[in-house]
Amino acid sequence: MDEITKVTHIDNVKLTGDKKAVTIIDQTQLPNRMVYLTMDTEEDCYDAILKLKVRGAPAIGIFAGYAMYVLCQKYAHKPYGEFAAEFHRQKEYLNSSRPTAVNLSWALKRMEQVVTDNAGKSVSEIVELLGAECAKIHQEDIEMCRKISEYGLSLIKEGDGILTHCNAGPLATSRYGTAIGPMLLGKERGMNFRVFADETRPLLQGARLTSFELQKAGIDVTLICDNMASIVMRNGWVQACFVGCDRIAANGDFANKIGTSGVAILAKHYGIPFYTLGPSSTIDMNCPDGAHIEIELRDPEEIKEKFYAEPMALKEVKCYNPAFDVTDHELLSGIVTEKGIVRPPFDVNLKKLFGN
Amino acid sequence: MDEITKVTHIDNVKLTGDKKAVTIIDQTQLPNRMVYLTMDTEEDCYDAILKLKVRGAPAIGIFAGYAMYVLCQKYAHKPYGEFAAEFHRQKEYLNSSRPTAVNLSWALKRMEQVVTDNAGKSVSEIVELLGAECAKIHQEDIEMCRKISEYGLSLIKEGDGILTHCNAGPLATSRYGTAIGPMLLGKERGMNFRVFADETRPLLQGARLTSFELQKAGIDVTLICDNMASIVMRNGWVQACFVGCDRIAANGDFANKIGTSGVAILAKHYGIPFYTLGPSSTIDMNCPDGAHIEIELRDPEEIKEKFYAEPMALKEVKCYNPAFDVTDHELLSGIVTEKGIVRPPFDVNLKKLFGN
Repeated sequence: MDEITKVTHIDNVKLTGDKKAVTIIDQTQLPNRMVYLTMDTEEDCYDAILKLKVRGAPAIGIFAGYAMYVLCQKYAHKPYGEFAAEFHRQKEYLNSSRPTAVNLSWALKRMEQVVTDNAGKSVSEIVELLGAECAKIHQEDIEMCRKISEYGLSLIKEGDGILTHCNAGPLATSRYGTAIGPMLLGKERGMNFRVFADETRPLLQGARLTSFELQKAGIDVTLICDNMASIVMRNGWVQACFVGCDRIAANGDFANKIGTSGVAILAKHYGIPFYTLGPSSTIDMNCPDGAHIEIELRDPEEIKEKFYAEPMALKEVKCYNPAFDVTDHELLSGIVTEKGIVRPPFDVNLKKLFGN
Repeated sequence: MDEITKVTHIDNVKLTGDKKAVTIIDQTQLPNRMVYLTMDTEEDCYDAILKLKVRGAPAIGIFAGYAMYVLCQKYAHKPYGEFAAEFHRQKEYLNSSRPTAVNLSWALKRMEQVVTDNAGKSVSEIVELLGAECAKIHQEDIEMCRKISEYGLSLIKEGDGILTHCNAGPLATSRYGTAIGPMLLGKERGMNFRVFADETRPLLQGARLTSFELQKAGIDVTLICDNMASIVMRNGWVQACFVGCDRIAANGDFANKIGTSGVAILAKHYGIPFYTLGPSSTIDMNCPDGAHIEIELRDPEEIKEKFYAEPMALKEVKCYNPAFDVTDHELLSGIVTEKGIVRPPFDVNLKKLFGN
């Protein structure tokens, strides 16, 4: 695993094979194995998102851009009308893999816009422009993560304890990540933090990915079960909570990994500031509030069987397994974006920055 | 598993082998295997408590009583002084297995009191009295659980959704249990409830034991990860939270399975009543408040490796693994005991009932 000791240099999504394929780190294999997956079919790309081989809202967006570019080269010999129709079909197909993360549809729309806007050009020119667009989506994310990390770092000080939920680090984004970007950036500058990583059931992204990234970066990380966040806060060990986001509504309500709203309620109870960090592409100004965010429900087997040597509940016991929950904007101290830190009242201040 | 279809008839702890051994259901093997463990050495008894083969505050108390009775028969031929000294040593040894649950030391003290109070009698008479005492501890618990279940049932109505954390059912106690006793008792009377069982990381007592018991009893149970309690409450599906307790301080602060305090904070946020249910032996009037309750810290491997087919975090990642947390009395709507429901102010009302 030497290649990822420098976690902020991880290339979790990249073009390979003379740009005819997209390669990801299979996040479902970590922390035990570093496996790269190379894909060039729509089924494999859909499956990679659905099965969380690539996950994290920004990483899914980057992946979707590259995937469309890789896939469209296969029908680049067709006339524009057929090309555009096939592009649209594939875009809709990939978009249906996960409903909650806005970055997926955002990146897919950006790619299709290139096809629409350049209807007068040759298909080969359009493919070239699509290649530039997906590279731009990636490059923009790198810059956004850097800026988000800078703004986030301004909220904490040397020695602080930060609690984070799920994974919003380099694997979920690019380079620094969002929620754990401030600690990674601060560490580079010689600062020290103590991070508490919720393991994040049922898929354990906090245990498998966040504690992995922080440990590799030399940051003081303590892994806890989700239900230990309360005692850790009560012990006085947490000065701020930083989490990522999958979709932010116009009023500041936001969807993130299941359990986020619980952490926010605990933080409010204990008087600890609670921030979500994400690129502005996560903000959906067309979505008025959290009630309008569709929550993906996943397979009960993720709770009862996944990862275990044997089942942990009877086969006939039913489960409720939402992948995300909505955190009320009233629990939120601020939204950290690449354009700055948005403070309450969020409806007013989000409109100011992102109203157009 | 036919023998436990009627879960309220489970004998999770009993004397066997002409009362020369104590037999338990090995709770670590559930729900996949029903394994009975028979013990007659102090090491095995200590290990059974430490490794949670027997668990649940009341069940530990019952087990400790039977264990002392089984063990002391081996040195019943010795003169009183030696008998009493050996009894004391073994009692202290078993008492050191788990520090938080008050029922363990409470039951051990009751047993030793028999030895002390009957110093004038023959050792064989004392052993006989010890046999009666441990049977009495068990019988009292059966009656207490029944009464607790009755009082608890008065707090809920047909069709209510109840959220519970960890396991405070028949396996953790005797017969009906405490926290899930009201649902079991109500079910017998033809009432229906919908129970949400937190899986309860890291040892999954909610998944492995509570959902097992409720499913076998024909109660509508839905298993959730601990971090889903917030969304389930937000959905309006929970009308009351019922949890067990391992130690209740004189001011109403109480220790219970890790994560309980988080559930209580969520319940308060969503305006849902939150109750702890337990026998009065759980109340420690000598303990002024939660700050005086020692919290057992357990092995980090329970978080990173236990139950999994392979480790879920890097070996070098550290964990914080408290077995319990303390819930502030201000979050508590009531304490349900066999003597009635204690309401705030708890310091005053606990003293009235249990001050002597």
